[in-house]
Formats: sequence, C-alpha cells, structure tokens
Amino acid sequence: MSKPLCVIIGVGPKNGAAFAARFNDAGYRIALLSRSTSFSEELASSLSDARCYVCDVSDPASVASAFSQLHADMGDVDVLIYNAGGGSWQTVEEITPDDFERSWRVNALGALVASQQIIPAMKQRGSGIIIMVGATASLRGRPKTTGFAAAKAAQRSLAQSMAKHLGPSGIHVSLLIIDGSIASAESAEAGRGERLDPRDIAELAHYLTTQPKSAWSFEVDVRPSKESW
Amino acid sequence: MSKPLCVIIGVGPKNGAAFAARFNDAGYRIALLSRSTSFSEELASSLSDARCYVCDVSDPASVASAFSQLHADMGDVDVLIYNAGGGSWQTVEEITPDDFERSWRVNALGALVASQQIIPAMKQRGSGIIIMVGATASLRGRPKTTGFAAAKAAQRSLAQSMAKHLGPSGIHVSLLIIDGSIASAESAEAGRGERLDPRDIAELAHYLTTQPKSAWSFEVDVRPSKESW
Amino acid sequence: MSKPLCVIIGVGPKNGAAFAARFNDAGYRIALLSRSTSFSEELASSLSDARCYVCDVSDPASVASAFSQLHADMGDVDVLIYNAGGGSWQTVEEITPDDFERSWRVNALGALVASQQIIPAMKQRGSGIIIMVGATASLRGRPKTTGFAAAKAAQRSLAQSMAKHLGPSGIHVSLLIIDGSIASAESAEAGRGERLDPRDIAELAHYLTTQPKSAWSFEVDVRPSKESW
Amino acid sequence: MSKPLCVIIGVGPKNGAAFAARFNDAGYRIALLSRSTSFSEELASSLSDARCYVCDVSDPASVASAFSQLHADMGDVDVLIYNAGGGSWQTVEEITPDDFERSWRVNALGALVASQQIIPAMKQRGSGIIIMVGATASLRGRPKTTGFAAAKAAQRSLAQSMAKHLGPSGIHVSLLIIDGSIASAESAEAGRGERLDPRDIAELAHYLTTQPKSAWSFEVDVRPSKESW
Repeated sequence: MSKPLCVIIGVGPKNGAAFAARFNDAGYRIALLSRSTSFSEELASSLSDARCYVCDVSDPASVASAFSQLHADMGDVDVLIYNAGGGSWQTVEEITPDDFERSWRVNALGALVASQQIIPAMKQRGSGIIIMVGATASLRGRPKTTGFAAAKAAQRSLAQSMAKHLGPSGIHVSLLIIDGSIASAESAEAGRGERLDPRDIAELAHYLTTQPKSAWSFEVDVRPSKESW
Repeated sequence: MSKPLCVIIGVGPKNGAAFAARFNDAGYRIALLSRSTSFSEELASSLSDARCYVCDVSDPASVASAFSQLHADMGDVDVLIYNAGGGSWQTVEEITPDDFERSWRVNALGALVASQQIIPAMKQRGSGIIIMVGATASLRGRPKTTGFAAAKAAQRSLAQSMAKHLGPSGIHVSLLIIDGSIASAESAEAGRGERLDPRDIAELAHYLTTQPKSAWSFEVDVRPSKESW
Repeated sequence: MSKPLCVIIGVGPKNGAAFAARFNDAGYRIALLSRSTSFSEELASSLSDARCYVCDVSDPASVASAFSQLHADMGDVDVLIYNAGGGSWQTVEEITPDDFERSWRVNALGALVASQQIIPAMKQRGSGIIIMVGATASLRGRPKTTGFAAAKAAQRSLAQSMAKHLGPSGIHVSLLIIDGSIASAESAEAGRGERLDPRDIAELAHYLTTQPKSAWSFEVDVRPSKESW
Repeated sequence: MSKPLCVIIGVGPKNGAAFAARFNDAGYRIALLSRSTSFSEELASSLSDARCYVCDVSDPASVASAFSQLHADMGDVDVLIYNAGGGSWQTVEEITPDDFERSWRVNALGALVASQQIIPAMKQRGSGIIIMVGATASLRGRPKTTGFAAAKAAQRSLAQSMAKHLGPSGIHVSLLIIDGSIASAESAEAGRGERLDPRDIAELAHYLTTQPKSAWSFEVDVRPSKESW
C-alpha cells in the first residue's frame, strides 16, 4: 500500500516547515506548494519523500497547473493544508483596492481553487481532509486589519460552507484559529507559553486528520498559555 | 442651508426604492447609483431632488468615476447606503472562481471603494454615516452560499474595521443583518409578519442616521415576526 | 382609549430614569420596579402618570407579587424593559458561589420570571415588547467578569429562546448590548462621544417599540463614537 | 512516580464511561463523581484504579465535600472533566423558575464550584487542565432550550473567564461544543458518521490534555460527519 499524500500550500520556516515535518514523521509523502521553491527545496531535502511545486495561490490558473502536475507525479491527495496567508496592516484610509484584493486572493480565493482541485477525487473515495489556517482576524476586524481580516472572514465562511456541504460525502474540513504570535521552533518563549510553537500547531493539525467520522471538529482555536485574549 | 445628501448604491424596486423614498421624505437630496439607470430614472422622477449615476460596483474605476461626477454635481455626502449585493446559490462543487470573485467584488470590494470616495470629506467635517446592507449569510456559511456568504462575511469584517477606525473621527459605520425574505412594499405578508417590508428596513436605516455620537449602533439584525431562526 | 403601560425594572439615575422619561414623553403610563423606592418615588413625581413598586428581582415570589399588584392597579403591560443588572468584579479565584448565584438571579432568573408574568396577556392580545439590557459581557467572559458575564450570557441566551418562541405570537423580544460606560445625562463627555448618554439609549429602546411586525430587531449594540472596541 | 489523577463529574454510560476508559488506558487513576454510584461502581470495577464519590453538583456543599474526601484519598487532581449536564426541554411559557435554576446549577454553578476545589493546588504546581462539556446550545438559544441553553451559555462564559484568567498560571481550560446526538459506543451509526461516538469525544478530550503550553485550544466543536448544521 502506498504512503498517503499530504499537500501543504504556503511553505515558510515556521508553520509550513512544521506541518511538513509532522506529516513526514507520520509516514506521509509531502507536496510543498509555494510561490518560490528557494525555501521549499531545502525543506524537501530534509524529508523522506517530498516534492516541490511552484504555485501562486492568487492565480487560479497557477493553482490548477500545480495540482495537475502534482497529481500526475504523486496521485490522489489525502490531506490538504491551506497555509497560504498574510496581508497588509492598513486602515481603510490607507489600503488600496489592489492590496484588499491581494489579501482576498491569497487567503480566500486560493483556498477555494486549491480545494476544488481535489474535492472530486476525495468525494469519489469518500474520504480526505482539508485544513485551513485562520487567525483571530477570521473572527473580527480591527482598525488596521482592513484587508487581512476581511480576507480571513471570507476564508472562514468558505470553510463553513465547505464543511457543511462535504461532510456527508466523507470529506472533513477544519479551520484552525491561530491566536498569538508564532515563535521559531526552538524558541524558549514557546516553552514558557509566551508564543506559539509551530510544531505544536502541526501536532494539532495532525490530530485532526486522525478524527473518525463519528467525531469531527470544524473550528479549533489555539494560543499560548500566557496570551492575553 | 442646503439639504443633506444621501447616496444609495444598488437600486432595485424593494430596498433601494424604499431607502430613496424614506430619505427623500426626511428632506435629503438623493443620488442613485446602479449598473443601469432603467429603474433608477423612473424612481428618481418620484423624488423631490434626485439624480442617477451609472456605477458598476465590481469595478473600482467605475465607482471612482461615478463619485467624482456625483461630487461635482451634488457636493459632499452625508449618508451612504451600500445596498449592492447578491450572489450565486452554489455549493463549493458548483461555483466557479469567477462567480466567487464576482460575489466578493459586488458585496465587499465595492463597499470598500465606495467608502473610500467619501471618507476624506466626512473626516474633515467630523460627521457622516455609512450603512452597509448585510444578511444572515454575513454571520455563517451554508452549503449553497459558498460565494454569497464568503462575500458577506468579508463585507461584515470590513465594516467592523471601518467602524472601529472611523468612529473616533466622527464617522458612523453600521451593518444591517437582514434575516428573511423581503416582500413587495404593499404586500399583506409583511403586515402579517411573514416577510420583511422594505419600508420598515428603510425606517431602521433612517433611525441609525439620527443616533448622536453618544450612542451609535454598529450591528443590527432585522427579521419578520414569524421568521423561524 | 387608555394610555399604554411601560414597566421598567431596575431604576437608577442613569438608564432607568432615562427610560422612564422617554416613555413618559411618548405618552406611556410608567410602572417603576426596584428594590427600594427611595429613588423611584422621586423619579415618579417628575412623570405624568407613574407608580412605584418594590421588587427584588432575585426572588421569584417578590417579582410575582409586584406584578400582581401592578396589574391590579394599572392593567396589561405593553412594554417591559428589564434593566436590572450588575454583578461583582471578581476572578474565578475570588468569586464565591453566592456572588455567582446573585449575579445570575439578578440578570437572568429575574428576567425570566418578570417576563412570565406578562407573556400570557401579551400572547392573548398578540402584541407587546420585552427589552432586556445586556452588555458586552453578554458576548464574552473576561478574567474579572466571572459572575457578571456568565449571568449576562445566560440572559442573552434566554432572550434568544424567548424571541424565537414568542415572535410568531406577536411578542417582540430585544436585547441591547451596551458597550462602554454610561455618563450622567447632562455630561459633556457624552456629547463628545466619549461616553454613552442614557437618554440616547432610551431613545433606541423607544425606537424598537415602534418597529412593526414586518421588521423586528433582536440584538442591537450601542456604544459612544470614541469607544475602543 | 505516582499515576496522574483524572476526575470525571457526571458519569453515565456514554460520555462519562468513555472518558473514564480513555484516561484509564492512558495511565490515569480515575475518580468518578455522580449523584448516585449505582452506575459508577460498576464502571469503576472495569478500571485499573478508580474510586467513586457521591456528588450532587447542584449543591456547593456536596461538591466541596466530595472533593475533600477525594483529595484525602487520592491527592491532587491533574485533569478535571466537567461532564455534568442536562436540562429540561421547555419553552419560556412552560419552564418553571425551579427548572430554570436547576439547569443553571447543574451546568454552570457546579462547574464553578468543582473548579474552585482544585484551582489552588493546580496554581501552586503551575499545571492542570479543566475540560467542560458544552453543546451547540452553549452558542445559541432555541424555543425549547430556554433553560438548557441559558445554562450552557453561562457555562461557556464562565469557561472563557477561567481560561483567560488561569492560562498565565499554567492551568488550561477548554470547552467542548458537542453538536449532534451521541450513540452508544458500539453503534454502527457512529461508524457511518450519523451519530457521535463517545469514545471519539473522549479521544478529543485526551488529546487536549497533551497540548503543551505553547499551543492550547480553548473551544473545540465536534460532530458526526453527516450532521446537518
């Protein structure tokens, strides 16, 4: 039996690398999708069975093309982690329509398009899980999160619609609400509960993939113990 | 002293017409912005002092151009009602990226761009109100609201960021959560509490414009008495 | 035709007095219910047609007794404003079970019992409105709102259950989410948008009583323009 | 080194038994607290190291007494699972103040009082976890959940206040939002994703106890894959 396949979209040295390491340890083959492969190639070399793909999540054609190649190379996807994100830190007076659109493309549109690449096969097999990485901004807007929070709110709503629609077909959709700043993996601040450790976020994501159909979680928040919230 | 100016974006025979009539009765001059003026011209003829502008809210340049002309013709805006909306009724399996984008452009991007046209003048005067028309979908996604709910969630988050940022400058931002189907203005169903009467939604919007700085409402839901929720 | 009757429970010099004055101006007879009548008697003397009743909202028997007398004296109730509230400012380590219970009795149990006194008559007539005064604590708990927030959350849930159940019978239930500190009625801070003016909160409550069955609001937040939220 | 101690309050044949079995398997000693020990004694006999205590969670003195005995017998508590719950299924017109109070005592007051018994020792050691078992009713009230939802809303708010206050002291507080009906442990319905399997809910609770301080979850929902929500 072949090893299952985990696709990670948005691969940086914190969460992305931690997701890759955790699912690698759990026996998954890993596909890393990112705008540039300069970091992902280095990360892939530390994993047992990983491949890198260039993918601009803000461009549906780029997403479709990356998944087409990935599917030809590695087959059906078992776990999709949508970790692409980010956005500008601007008030309504400062943000341009282009910045606002870019946040939405990276956080919401890309999540839709990536999911659409794998839903048909997951549905046919009656299994699979899609995990989106959200933030406290998914739940509320603040003066300087005009673009980021609006995009994360759209992503959260999308994830809800998907979870409700796909659950009965055996496809599990979850949203992580990351609350707090993320430390480097080796940081002592994480150990003291002052910042999030990306390895522990990855552990949570992996846990969600082990949930059977009789008990699925959709929305899970996560923060360091000393976070003020 | 000149009459105050109310701009209504998204002008149909239900809410749009009711907003126009209510603010006309309250002594406002009215600017009606819509993709086509076929309905708005007819509506304007029933009002004391109204002008129509063509505006495609999904296109920032069209919004900027409409407001530029409107400002030259009618001066500073006192009340902006963002009533443009709508979206397709599709699951994640059915919706195309273009449909998903169109929903977002009409419900969220257009609300940002329209607001940006008038915020500088409102800020300088230290007053003004922006009312966005949301829906129950602003609060949650359902299987067939993939595009609409994600767009309305983005709009709600945008409205929150704006309200928090602009409040201290004297600009009031509110979101109406419309829950239930809207009757024609003369429908007996509204009188029985089975459907929303657009005139009563307009009354609520007008009430919000009368709130002094000491007591502003941001989010207000509204539904017929017999709605199941 | 006799003047309608507004019952206000919880009568202090800020919100309670403002509700009384606003509904007095609108032509209502007023019943003032409070633990002691030392303030309410003085307030009543400034109103056209008001009576005072002693009522300890934490005690169901006291509530039932006050309403029984009130009904005998003044007849059926058209508007009930449940303004009793308050609670201690303590963490989970500091609060006693008795303090926790007292908060719940004043904010939640009292609201249930008072409502139950008037629902049968309102249902028979097919009209009436019950407005509960909540707070930001209705929506979330904080370290030092252990008792107050838990009680306000219970009250909010109660109000939701009531609104959904009673709406089809023509009884409107609303919850005000008061966010921010309340000034004295004449305070300049309210005029500058730094604090809430109780007269403007009362205006909002009165507005809600004017909503027809075709457009009822359940939950409405209200805060001063300069509030940070 | 002695085995850690898990206290389970509210012990029925579904969730309670599943929590006990899961923590037993993980090497915990188990204390079972319930109104009557008829079921818990039988359950305890299937566990390696378990004791039963009579505890009426609606009575603070009974809770204090049970914990006092439990502490003398078994020492400090590492994990507390507050699984006591339930309530009547009544509208605002049907529920009595006593039913309303009973729901609140079982779901909210008991959770406070039980937590207060163990917080001082947990704080001194800088570790420990308290898991409360909530429901969809924790998030909203419906016509027939007048008492249950108000009580669960109070419990949720309490859990939030506790989590925010106790986190910096090393005490983890979590709330499970159980959405859907719970099958018997061996039911085929659970395997098909039609109902919740209590063993999988227990697995989730156990997972939460393994989260390090760098990544704690507060609120986690859980439902069967085919649940309509």
